Amino acid sequence: MLRTFDVAPWHVTTTKWDPEHKRLQESMTSLGNENLGMRGFFEEGYSGDTLQGLYLGGVWFPDKTRVGWWKNGYPKYFGKVINAVNFIKMPISVNGEVVDLAKQTPTNFKLDLDMQHARLTRSFDLVVGGAKLSFVFERFISAAQKELVGQRLTVKNLGETPATVVVENAIDADVFNEDANYDEKFWQVLSRTVNEASVELTAMTKENDFGTERFTVGFESSVKTTMSAGESRQSELEVAQSYHQTLDASDSLTFEKRSVYVSSRDFADEAAIIDRLHELTSLVSGQTFAELVAAHEENWADRWTKSDVKIAGDDEAQQGIRFNLFQLFSTYYGQDARLNIGPKGFTGEKYGGATYWDTEAFAIPVYLGVADPSVSKNLLKYRYNQLDGAFINAQEQGLKGALYPMVTFNGVECHNEWEITFEEIHRNGDIAFAIYNYTRYTGDKSYVLNEGAQVLTEISRFWADRVHFSKRAGKYMLAGVTGPDEYQNNVDNNWYTNLLAQWTLKYTLEILAEVDDAVATKLAVSEAEKAKWQDIVDRFYLPYDEELGIFVENDGFLDKDLTPVKELDPSNLPLNQNWSWDKILRSPYIKQGDVLQGIWDFIDDFTPEQKEKNFDFYEPLTVHESSLSASIHSILAADLHKEDQAVEMYERTARLDLDNYNNDTEDGLHITSMTGAWLSIVQGFSGMRVRNDELHFAPFLPKKWDAYQFRQLFRGRVIEVKVDADGTHLSLLSGDPITVDLAGEKVTLEK
Amino acid sequence: MLRTFDVAPWHVTTTKWDPEHKRLQESMTSLGNENLGMRGFFEEGYSGDTLQGLYLGGVWFPDKTRVGWWKNGYPKYFGKVINAVNFIKMPISVNGEVVDLAKQTPTNFKLDLDMQHARLTRSFDLVVGGAKLSFVFERFISAAQKELVGQRLTVKNLGETPATVVVENAIDADVFNEDANYDEKFWQVLSRTVNEASVELTAMTKENDFGTERFTVGFESSVKTTMSAGESRQSELEVAQSYHQTLDASDSLTFEKRSVYVSSRDFADEAAIIDRLHELTSLVSGQTFAELVAAHEENWADRWTKSDVKIAGDDEAQQGIRFNLFQLFSTYYGQDARLNIGPKGFTGEKYGGATYWDTEAFAIPVYLGVADPSVSKNLLKYRYNQLDGAFINAQEQGLKGALYPMVTFNGVECHNEWEITFEEIHRNGDIAFAIYNYTRYTGDKSYVLNEGAQVLTEISRFWADRVHFSKRAGKYMLAGVTGPDEYQNNVDNNWYTNLLAQWTLKYTLEILAEVDDAVATKLAVSEAEKAKWQDIVDRFYLPYDEELGIFVENDGFLDKDLTPVKELDPSNLPLNQNWSWDKILRSPYIKQGDVLQGIWDFIDDFTPEQKEKNFDFYEPLTVHESSLSASIHSILAADLHKEDQAVEMYERTARLDLDNYNNDTEDGLHITSMTGAWLSIVQGFSGMRVRNDELHFAPFLPKKWDAYQFRQLFRGRVIEVKVDADGTHLSLLSGDPITVDLAGEKVTLEK
Repeated sequence: MLRTFDVAPWHVTTTKWDPEHKRLQESMTSLGNENLGMRGFFEEGYSGDTLQGLYLGGVWFPDKTRVGWWKNGYPKYFGKVINAVNFIKMPISVNGEVVDLAKQTPTNFKLDLDMQHARLTRSFDLVVGGAKLSFVFERFISAAQKELVGQRLTVKNLGETPATVVVENAIDADVFNEDANYDEKFWQVLSRTVNEASVELTAMTKENDFGTERFTVGFESSVKTTMSAGESRQSELEVAQSYHQTLDASDSLTFEKRSVYVSSRDFADEAAIIDRLHELTSLVSGQTFAELVAAHEENWADRWTKSDVKIAGDDEAQQGIRFNLFQLFSTYYGQDARLNIGPKGFTGEKYGGATYWDTEAFAIPVYLGVADPSVSKNLLKYRYNQLDGAFINAQEQGLKGALYPMVTFNGVECHNEWEITFEEIHRNGDIAFAIYNYTRYTGDKSYVLNEGAQVLTEISRFWADRVHFSKRAGKYMLAGVTGPDEYQNNVDNNWYTNLLAQWTLKYTLEILAEVDDAVATKLAVSEAEKAKWQDIVDRFYLPYDEELGIFVENDGFLDKDLTPVKELDPSNLPLNQNWSWDKILRSPYIKQGDVLQGIWDFIDDFTPEQKEKNFDFYEPLTVHESSLSASIHSILAADLHKEDQAVEMYERTARLDLDNYNNDTEDGLHITSMTGAWLSIVQGFSGMRVRNDELHFAPFLPKKWDAYQFRQLFRGRVIEVKVDADGTHLSLLSGDPITVDLAGEKVTLEK
Repeated sequence: MLRTFDVAPWHVTTTKWDPEHKRLQESMTSLGNENLGMRGFFEEGYSGDTLQGLYLGGVWFPDKTRVGWWKNGYPKYFGKVINAVNFIKMPISVNGEVVDLAKQTPTNFKLDLDMQHARLTRSFDLVVGGAKLSFVFERFISAAQKELVGQRLTVKNLGETPATVVVENAIDADVFNEDANYDEKFWQVLSRTVNEASVELTAMTKENDFGTERFTVGFESSVKTTMSAGESRQSELEVAQSYHQTLDASDSLTFEKRSVYVSSRDFADEAAIIDRLHELTSLVSGQTFAELVAAHEENWADRWTKSDVKIAGDDEAQQGIRFNLFQLFSTYYGQDARLNIGPKGFTGEKYGGATYWDTEAFAIPVYLGVADPSVSKNLLKYRYNQLDGAFINAQEQGLKGALYPMVTFNGVECHNEWEITFEEIHRNGDIAFAIYNYTRYTGDKSYVLNEGAQVLTEISRFWADRVHFSKRAGKYMLAGVTGPDEYQNNVDNNWYTNLLAQWTLKYTLEILAEVDDAVATKLAVSEAEKAKWQDIVDRFYLPYDEELGIFVENDGFLDKDLTPVKELDPSNLPLNQNWSWDKILRSPYIKQGDVLQGIWDFIDDFTPEQKEKNFDFYEPLTVHESSLSASIHSILAADLHKEDQAVEMYERTARLDLDNYNNDTEDGLHITSMTGAWLSIVQGFSGMRVRNDELHFAPFLPKKWDAYQFRQLFRGRVIEVKVDADGTHLSLLSGDPITVDLAGEKVTLEK
């Protein structure tokens, strides 16, 4: 654990200049607006250790797969998120000396991420070029204008020595990825332009081995400033225009930079991209900085109105939950159905902006509660739009139907470990489940009866081809799979995967009975096919142990040495840092909930006894070495009235990055795990469920807290739930009256 | 199938110039002497498609492991056999035109590998430089002088036009590996020298990421010729001295090149290497070409005296068995205990010269029969000498004792697929078994009671730590393993592995009871440790199916869809080219014998009924997609009196490379699979077994054959076994009288 920022309800803030944890601070002060995002690196440049990262939604590179030994069905490439051209760059010099906090030590330092208004401010005093100056850097990525990054620099001369300040408006394509295989650069510059008040650069991603998926991107940065334009500078990969102003004692300057980008994801060619760039620059130049900020902040105010969570009596928890929602919304807010939620969002290279099953399993359940249904629906559409890629993935394995990828940018699998690529196929069930989850939560059947029906049908076709019939057992089985618990690889009959496969087939049959004729004709599921699916549903093998009364994670699991985690010497933990992969695979230790993930999905389908037996068996074997794990356990513990355990599990997830629990936040934030705190509070502590079109609550108040309250969207209403020592208080903030179930009693809410 | 050479009993020969199959021909005409080897590439150079490959025993490069996602316990490097400096190079020009068969078309072409004398001869007529000449290239790699390659070129002017012939004596370090990751060159030249009658070059392998395992090698080539010395030539990576002679009509020239190499494997520094080079050059220069050839051939004559197999009535089979023994002996003949038998020997890059379990499981059983015991003993010592590496491998997995590597040059694991690296651990049992096999065959206990006892002890320590106790089953188990059948990965309780682990522990306990006090003290196996091993032996789980009466390959195997291979559409075969890895893993199809490998190992321990039930169950599921597979099946079929099946299986292995069955011989020969034909004939058709220190035979004669005979070494005797229509004829060629068992009857053999 390492906490580098102060605890404050709406701020991630520090007054400590801490170059030792520079990368960690950069991760923590990331901003984003779904269309782009960046780490909190310094615009003026920094010659010390830094991970300069700025990423564009959906702009990536298909890199050649690296495996020990190629085999049929392996993905041909893996997608690499690429560091974008640095178009917020703003080098500064004072009396000829470059401002570089690796070389001059600031005083009065303050770094502040304002989560309420989604703005980053950095200020400090500095002796540089013989003068003493104060600097204030402000930055936001507009939630109102998706292409826009706004920056403002204010410099004031604090001393008597005159200071000639030179600031450059630069766009720099000389960037790299730390994970580049051969230290190669990913950008080729197509054109550069310098005007007195703006610079412009277009670049294209480099050629790849697959002759596809190249992106052209234009960047333009315009300036409003008190400074005078001076010389310009161009090199192959960079363009810059300088501005200068001499500050006498107490004088100050302002330098505003408005940067926009446009890519070939939206426009056909470079000319169209440049036209659109000019149009956008004209648009944003016509507004004051204050106007731009106001539009941005209005957007965020609306987000918080629907989603804010308040925790009384625990400032750390308060900051934690807001930080999580802030970063989640910065990564995705449902504006573009071609984008998704990378496990590290726009905050680092590893996992990058690629799509994982985290989205369906962990993020959608949160977005359903905190944002308009359209946000979740766009996440569903993302998968519908990538059906063609899912067909390719199934074909690569010689199978029918659709196999959604474990990792992807475009629908085609790009994960390069076989035991995950074509074995961790539960994801196909999770994607089906998300359609059901959306439908039961929103009551909106428009998706499931149209696009959704097709996705379900093609996933079902995959399952029906992927199972085999064991004559010996008289059952359908799934051999060679990996469940959510990646510490058990290439197993047979993972209960969770089998359950989801069986359920998908059953649900698809139900939906097919409801679709209209046009959809049915398009899907062309024959009666024989349906009969086959029904047979699979009826005779699917779900490993169960009579003696223990538990579902068995996979065949053979109970033959392991089932020593509980707490009996291990703690020096063994985390296992993935201390044990060989071999030892991990042979152990019974569970990376993240697996059987328990299935029980969470269908929590109302199990008896309390079933839930308890499975929880009591599997929880002691779970090491929670995926940051996605603890929240599900928290919810189940709460469901089983194991309140202390529920809180303990919640605490593992609530401040994961704020307190750098996994000691890897410097590489980027755990964006999809940021869902955990909300899930624990709402599904766990408050017991929120949707049953038969009705919202249910059964809250308890964690002992450490005085109160907590959250806002939740449900079918056109915003409902506020407050839980304190006096009990639970429900109020309807907007929308029509609604009846909800509070711990077994029906309560009608009106404004 | 593709046959590019004529069928002849002692020759691999063709009169067809066939540039289309150049690489295949190069593989087939490989030569070697354990210390070095090379493909049959052209010394004069060839600008068309060729795989120029020349390899030095034990000279390799530790390349960085490439994996999708690094995990603890993965090997840090994989060993790459590197193409050696081309010191047989001999460019030729005639009247200024370079001789290059890619550009001039030869007539009267003949390429001949004489297996009896281990010499390669290539001859052709060529119009070049306006003249018509005949060329004869002779080549051998001395079996008598391990550092020596001898070459002789004879050129004769067949026409009237005078021909000025220039030949260069060159040493060229500008070579590359086709499997280089970054097209990098592996050699750095340290020094070059040109003398009138010799050239010399020393080179060092390039720096690697591990700061170790670098090799310095010196090469010297001296010349005896009718030609006159001319200009010399040097570049950074090459050195050459030219010779010229003008041939009038019917004139001829000879050009002999004697090349030697010395490496840092034997000498401490460059100076010592160069001294030794000069010493060797002086030695070989002092002998005529005929003398050098004679010493070489004498050596081979002795090899064949002990090992030749004659097959009457089947010329193809005759050629096949001799080719197999020839290539096996060219790869390894037990002269250097630091060397081993790479699956492709010196004939290609893939698998290279690294050591696999093929050596113990397939090669040692052959060498025991065809060569002095010292040959097999050196293969055992190889593992003893690499114990330190095996300790490292076990430690990397957090385990005690010794884990021998799946692939290695130096004892440290360098295979980079986790499912093999630390799961295909049956190899540890195979290495233990080889000690037992050597001992029972030779009757020589000196190894097993000394070095062997230590190897067995450390392997047993590994097994004892690797097993776990299943409380549920009350049995010791091995989870997370891969058997010889690599089409079932990461399974639990592979019967073969469990059997070998159990057997190793049992055998080690037996041996420990016999070792002398000094050895016992050194091994320091406590009574508690022995008791633990005994408990594991007593309660080891060996999967068995009562209903079918078979050993079960691994847990869950019988739940698969057990459709026999013959019911698959043949277009599916070979599976590894037509199916995804996913589909293969889920299928019941067996790459190579697994349960049957275990039954072969301990063939006398099973009842005929057990053998038959298992054979009849597993054989129909086996696809033999390892070239090691068919011979074991042939032996078991013979054992079960399924003679036609035994012959059919034999035929799959006998001419694997000669007829390019797997369509990949162009990449190199399947050296370790060359054991298959001998094993099938001797252990299969002739039923050779060693039981209680006695040799047993129970031969049958394949229907197609008139007769077969083989020579076998057994405890100081050379015994010849001839089987024809009249029965079996045994004769003792050398050694003391001996009694053998022939189909149940005792027969005493005398000279």
